[in-house]
Amino acid sequence: MPFTRVSLLKGKSPDYLRSLSDNLHKALVDAFDVPPGDRFQAIHQHEPGELVFDRHYLVGPRSDDFVLFAIIAGRPRSAAVKAAFYQRLVALLAEGPGVRPEDVMVIINTTQTDEWSFGCGAPASGAGVSGPGATA
Amino acid sequence: MPFTRVSLLKGKSPDYLRSLSDNLHKALVDAFDVPPGDRFQAIHQHEPGELVFDRHYLVGPRSDDFVLFAIIAGRPRSAAVKAAFYQRLVALLAEGPGVRPEDVMVIINTTQTDEWSFGCGAPASGAGVSGPGATA
Amino acid sequence: MPFTRVSLLKGKSPDYLRSLSDNLHKALVDAFDVPPGDRFQAIHQHEPGELVFDRHYLVGPRSDDFVLFAIIAGRPRSAAVKAAFYQRLVALLAEGPGVRPEDVMVIINTTQTDEWSFGCGAPASGAGVSGPGATA
Repeated sequence: MPFTRVSLLKGKSPDYLRSLSDNLHKALVDAFDVPPGDRFQAIHQHEPGELVFDRHYLVGPRSDDFVLFAIIAGRPRSAAVKAAFYQRLVALLAEGPGVRPEDVMVIINTTQTDEWSFGCGAPASGAGVSGPGATA
Repeated sequence: MPFTRVSLLKGKSPDYLRSLSDNLHKALVDAFDVPPGDRFQAIHQHEPGELVFDRHYLVGPRSDDFVLFAIIAGRPRSAAVKAAFYQRLVALLAEGPGVRPEDVMVIINTTQTDEWSFGCGAPASGAGVSGPGATA
Repeated sequence: MPFTRVSLLKGKSPDYLRSLSDNLHKALVDAFDVPPGDRFQAIHQHEPGELVFDRHYLVGPRSDDFVLFAIIAGRPRSAAVKAAFYQRLVALLAEGPGVRPEDVMVIINTTQTDEWSFGCGAPASGAGVSGPGATA
């Protein structure tokens, strides 16, 4: 926990995607109380027309570098933690791969710990799973 | 808010996808209390075998035009609002791009407003985000 | 209900994907109280670099056969039901297509019944939808 689905337009280099992935994870570790080893992400690259986003709604202008992070979290976080995470994420992504803050959208979806199994058929907080990450 | 992931079989024209996107958004604005500018969607086109759906479960028959809308909403809506939205959506999609009502499946997933950031590292209802959409 | 998004690395055969789909559904029917006809899945095949997963976090080692099941459920299940489902899923996937238990990750996301429409603009438990599956 968490798991993040990353959606953006097709055409970025492997290095760009790697930097995006690295700094997403760093922001989660720095500001969202996520253990360093707890890294699970899926990147969806879309053709033009498949990723639809308003260029000016509330924040903007958004560009073709728009990226949406849909995060499934394993337990609730406070409003303050969420706000700090958003800030940390845009700061890191501005450094690498160089995403403008206006292009970073985030949605968090909260579940319960026993709704996760990291493998071997064991619930995340149950028997068969050990380590500090089991409570994260 | 909301964000919608649209899943269907590959092979539709850009015009078809555009009409699908337009009428999804129109239904959200008309019946789900969504501001006109609040338009965020990702379309996933699947190869045969990647999109699995029962042809007759509860409603049918479903055809290869089957489309699933997985909507993440930013606040709860009443059962009446949800029901009216489903009806509006199938009515509009029957007009364009011409989807049969039996082929329209919807799942809504409700989150909290502070679980959204539209950009610039600001929570959706917090400082740095303004406008009526901030409460939607 | 439920709907499952399956994420794995590209390169598997149609037979492999079919077996994955079949045994996911069998596990849901056997252990998650899902009607046999209630089968809805989307498979997302990712290029290397698009699917990011830690090889050793809590469980492992994970291999390139890693598969993540993100399930949206239509009503709450008990911790015991969820735990039994995880076990049934890894047991069946070990038989076919032959996935190691360490490579099977699951996330469940719980919604409400009226957040679903299976078609024709009707809410899942409302008028216009009939049959035992309407309460599942």
